[in-house]
Amino acid sequence: MTLNIYLSGEIHTDWREQIVEGAKGLDVNFSGPVTDHAASDDCGVTILGAEDQKYWHDHKGAMLNAIRTRHGIAQADVVVVRFGDKYKQWNAAFDAGQAAALGKPLVVLSPPEHQHALKEVHAAALAVAEEPRQVVEILRYVLTGALPG
Amino acid sequence: MTLNIYLSGEIHTDWREQIVEGAKGLDVNFSGPVTDHAASDDCGVTILGAEDQKYWHDHKGAMLNAIRTRHGIAQADVVVVRFGDKYKQWNAAFDAGQAAALGKPLVVLSPPEHQHALKEVHAAALAVAEEPRQVVEILRYVLTGALPG
Amino acid sequence: MTLNIYLSGEIHTDWREQIVEGAKGLDVNFSGPVTDHAASDDCGVTILGAEDQKYWHDHKGAMLNAIRTRHGIAQADVVVVRFGDKYKQWNAAFDAGQAAALGKPLVVLSPPEHQHALKEVHAAALAVAEEPRQVVEILRYVLTGALPG
Amino acid sequence: MTLNIYLSGEIHTDWREQIVEGAKGLDVNFSGPVTDHAASDDCGVTILGAEDQKYWHDHKGAMLNAIRTRHGIAQADVVVVRFGDKYKQWNAAFDAGQAAALGKPLVVLSPPEHQHALKEVHAAALAVAEEPRQVVEILRYVLTGALPG
Amino acid sequence: MTLNIYLSGEIHTDWREQIVEGAKGLDVNFSGPVTDHAASDDCGVTILGAEDQKYWHDHKGAMLNAIRTRHGIAQADVVVVRFGDKYKQWNAAFDAGQAAALGKPLVVLSPPEHQHALKEVHAAALAVAEEPRQVVEILRYVLTGALPG
Amino acid sequence: MTLNIYLSGEIHTDWREQIVEGAKGLDVNFSGPVTDHAASDDCGVTILGAEDQKYWHDHKGAMLNAIRTRHGIAQADVVVVRFGDKYKQWNAAFDAGQAAALGKPLVVLSPPEHQHALKEVHAAALAVAEEPRQVVEILRYVLTGALPG
Amino acid sequence: MTLNIYLSGEIHTDWREQIVEGAKGLDVNFSGPVTDHAASDDCGVTILGAEDQKYWHDHKGAMLNAIRTRHGIAQADVVVVRFGDKYKQWNAAFDAGQAAALGKPLVVLSPPEHQHALKEVHAAALAVAEEPRQVVEILRYVLTGALPG
Amino acid sequence: MTLNIYLSGEIHTDWREQIVEGAKGLDVNFSGPVTDHAASDDCGVTILGAEDQKYWHDHKGAMLNAIRTRHGIAQADVVVVRFGDKYKQWNAAFDAGQAAALGKPLVVLSPPEHQHALKEVHAAALAVAEEPRQVVEILRYVLTGALPG
Repeated sequence: MTLNIYLSGEIHTDWREQIVEGAKGLDVNFSGPVTDHAASDDCGVTILGAEDQKYWHDHKGAMLNAIRTRHGIAQADVVVVRFGDKYKQWNAAFDAGQAAALGKPLVVLSPPEHQHALKEVHAAALAVAEEPRQVVEILRYVLTGALPG
Repeated sequence: MTLNIYLSGEIHTDWREQIVEGAKGLDVNFSGPVTDHAASDDCGVTILGAEDQKYWHDHKGAMLNAIRTRHGIAQADVVVVRFGDKYKQWNAAFDAGQAAALGKPLVVLSPPEHQHALKEVHAAALAVAEEPRQVVEILRYVLTGALPG
Repeated sequence: MTLNIYLSGEIHTDWREQIVEGAKGLDVNFSGPVTDHAASDDCGVTILGAEDQKYWHDHKGAMLNAIRTRHGIAQADVVVVRFGDKYKQWNAAFDAGQAAALGKPLVVLSPPEHQHALKEVHAAALAVAEEPRQVVEILRYVLTGALPG
Repeated sequence: MTLNIYLSGEIHTDWREQIVEGAKGLDVNFSGPVTDHAASDDCGVTILGAEDQKYWHDHKGAMLNAIRTRHGIAQADVVVVRFGDKYKQWNAAFDAGQAAALGKPLVVLSPPEHQHALKEVHAAALAVAEEPRQVVEILRYVLTGALPG
Repeated sequence: MTLNIYLSGEIHTDWREQIVEGAKGLDVNFSGPVTDHAASDDCGVTILGAEDQKYWHDHKGAMLNAIRTRHGIAQADVVVVRFGDKYKQWNAAFDAGQAAALGKPLVVLSPPEHQHALKEVHAAALAVAEEPRQVVEILRYVLTGALPG
Repeated sequence: MTLNIYLSGEIHTDWREQIVEGAKGLDVNFSGPVTDHAASDDCGVTILGAEDQKYWHDHKGAMLNAIRTRHGIAQADVVVVRFGDKYKQWNAAFDAGQAAALGKPLVVLSPPEHQHALKEVHAAALAVAEEPRQVVEILRYVLTGALPG
Repeated sequence: MTLNIYLSGEIHTDWREQIVEGAKGLDVNFSGPVTDHAASDDCGVTILGAEDQKYWHDHKGAMLNAIRTRHGIAQADVVVVRFGDKYKQWNAAFDAGQAAALGKPLVVLSPPEHQHALKEVHAAALAVAEEPRQVVEILRYVLTGALPG
Repeated sequence: MTLNIYLSGEIHTDWREQIVEGAKGLDVNFSGPVTDHAASDDCGVTILGAEDQKYWHDHKGAMLNAIRTRHGIAQADVVVVRFGDKYKQWNAAFDAGQAAALGKPLVVLSPPEHQHALKEVHAAALAVAEEPRQVVEILRYVLTGALPG
């Protein structure tokens, strides 16, 4: 059994690296969005031409990024969505909604203080973790049956 | 042509009433979440029994509410998602993600200051409006071909 | 909003009647299996001809009943599955699995003593109730937003 | 032709090992649930934190296990479901229901004494066997056209 | 519960009339192909222009008829396929294959002498009847739970 | 049997009116795009605000129109696509592609001189007509079995 | 581009061998039913136990064979269905119906004398050939663009 | 992450070669229609026999080509559709419609002068480029996150 894991959400901490590192040796493939914030914001206008309006600048970029993110979610066997401490993070919740509607098993990684605000997303998840280490433990258990410790 | 419209998101202002009022005479059916905040938070424990942990209190409620919201989104011909000025509103973005993955035409109603944070959601929408009045005008145009003024 | 409710499972107590009675005035349509035990067992051979082997006797009946049960589950907006105190009730769990795979909101009605044995089914449900009255309260809340009391 | 086979159900006898051993040399991949009963029961709380209530203890575990079982069933070309002599085994019937609703060819492995209680599940199956050896013979025939003896 | 029934297959005897007559009072809607043999053969060229080649004459007609038959099968809750004593009747088996692939409950109405030749079609059916009367009895049982006699 | 017919394509002649008029008395519902050319071009900026760039002016309008056209195609039982003598008419071919991918029966109404250029679209159609009258005759035959004359 | 080809239908001549031989060097994988007539008829009772009634003898075999044929059709990129000179061949038409409903490109291989009786099946096909050689030429053209001669 | 790219549309310039060349080193697989114009027009009659009528000559060819194009679009992760300066190019718009209805990310490659006529197709695209080089840059960004320059 191989699992394709899509790592969605917050791009300002090293949570993805922690999971990829921790999962070494497991039969998993990881994918996720472009995590270079500047490239992600400007990709549309850089490739397809500048826009005067900020709205269309953002729109062109968001549509290009959607080629990657929709493909990643569609190919995933498990979608992990991380909510961090800052920013609105509506794209994370949007990805979670897509995953839920496609019937993808959803793992949410979020701090306790966001529990109430995330209750609808949590209700669609098969696991709610607080630490990247727990996501690794979930993947190991799902793939091998082995529990930590 | 009848359109079933699901009105998702913010529950603290009267935007739903404005749209329903404005759309009188059009061939539309509206649905949406339970908008009584207290009932929405406590429905799970009120019906199915109290919980000691806040997490499970919220979980039971969110799952009951999901019976209504999933049905509403699944039955909708158009999903309107409103982002307001306050709160995290991850449930709004989560609903938008479900609508997008199900191929439902998505109309976003959001203030200009949230434009950048909502760019991924906007990129999946067929219209981005700032005022409930515009949503009514969209529905009227889609149903009858008539433009305002 | 109208809800089509499929009432699956145990056929030896009056739980269906309690729900139908309690839900009077709500915008719901109920369906369910044939609850006449003898007819349900013998329908196949009565209509299509006798069988020497008990296996094929049962098989012919179970296939005829499947015309009704599959249609009911497929048309349902909510599937309620009741597990009682007696019998194997594998057909109830089988219906629950069908409902889950079809993405139908699932409400389980089961006594506390079966909690551990039903944990996989419960994990796929949006509500787990112990009394028919609670199912009625769920339907009323989902349809109208009103809570008991 | 390669067949992915999901082996669902009873975890207390060596029926899986018999099938895997018997199918050596055939072009098949086997998967199934975690069969370590204790790990399966406690995985949720071990990884995601303890629960006071038995219900939520079980719930967290059942949801983690669902990541594996749903993936296994979704990827399967054939689902084999084993019903043994003991326990309620509602999870086996639940898996069979999921397989049926997803249009997966279903093979049931069950003792004769459960025939009547399993008639709805049998009616959805393409084969009903009593011995693991017969499942191997089915796989060999389906893949190679060769019959036993 | 209303059932939409598609009556496919043989068009040379009055089996459809027998079923429609027998089902009076039941909550069913019947549909089926155009049963006027000459119209069915010539509809394409009559409306869309003559063809020199018999193949294209037949092709144009068969495609027009497919507008009706595909719609009827797609809308059906139950598909009844009748095999008679004469002709190749490949269109009946073709309709049965479509119904099976779409997950429609299939009832086959066929004489005993065709049993071996129809075994693959029978294996996909939920009922195999020999007389139109039995189809009526099936519909009555499925809708009302009442058995004959 | 009721048929929902979506009339896609050319908006400069009265072909839709001819079909609607000719089909009086048949059990059909017609839908189609907004056929007021100016409204169709300007709906986006009229409702959602002006754009400096022609591209975004058109884009906003095309996306609003898509709410109506996608819904119409999705609800249709038969999609009729008309190619006229003038303009590029890529939207007509685009609608035909959507209809084909969704498995909708497709009727093409096109002049003989476009035959070669439309061969891929014709190959996906169940009927290719030259006159609106023929579309009416097809609908009458499909619904009633009656042929002209 | 690799194509998975399912070769359905007649099992009494060497048409499959001709196609497999002719397609050597092309990037294709072939599958098909068990073509050993006796094994195909008796597989059910040989593996799962004898039956007194011919109907159930056939039924058990047809269901086992369905594990292979449904998988083959579901995995196929192109389904080729051969109608020969003899027998009823309803299983061939049944397979063609399944392929059509699943949206699989269908190639029919049939003698001219069956043209009228097969017109509904032909109307769902993308090619109608008379010789195995033509099927090979189709596969070569589709994969490489090369035409014979 | 590997991307399967279908290159649809205009076959008279070397835009496909430019993209394939530019994308060297990226993890992509390209497919597309047969681009030999004569072979594409005549494949049907060459393999399956001559036709007197131009319509059926074209029809047979278009249906054979559909085996390849439908497969290519169905297997694609991204569909690129090129509109050139000449011809009607309805097949390009038809492919775009199929891609859109299947939820495939769509990239349109078209000259500025066709902007207004293509607005419905553009509104369904995630990117609209004018030069093959931009398509390569999109693929590189989507796969690696790297922007040009």
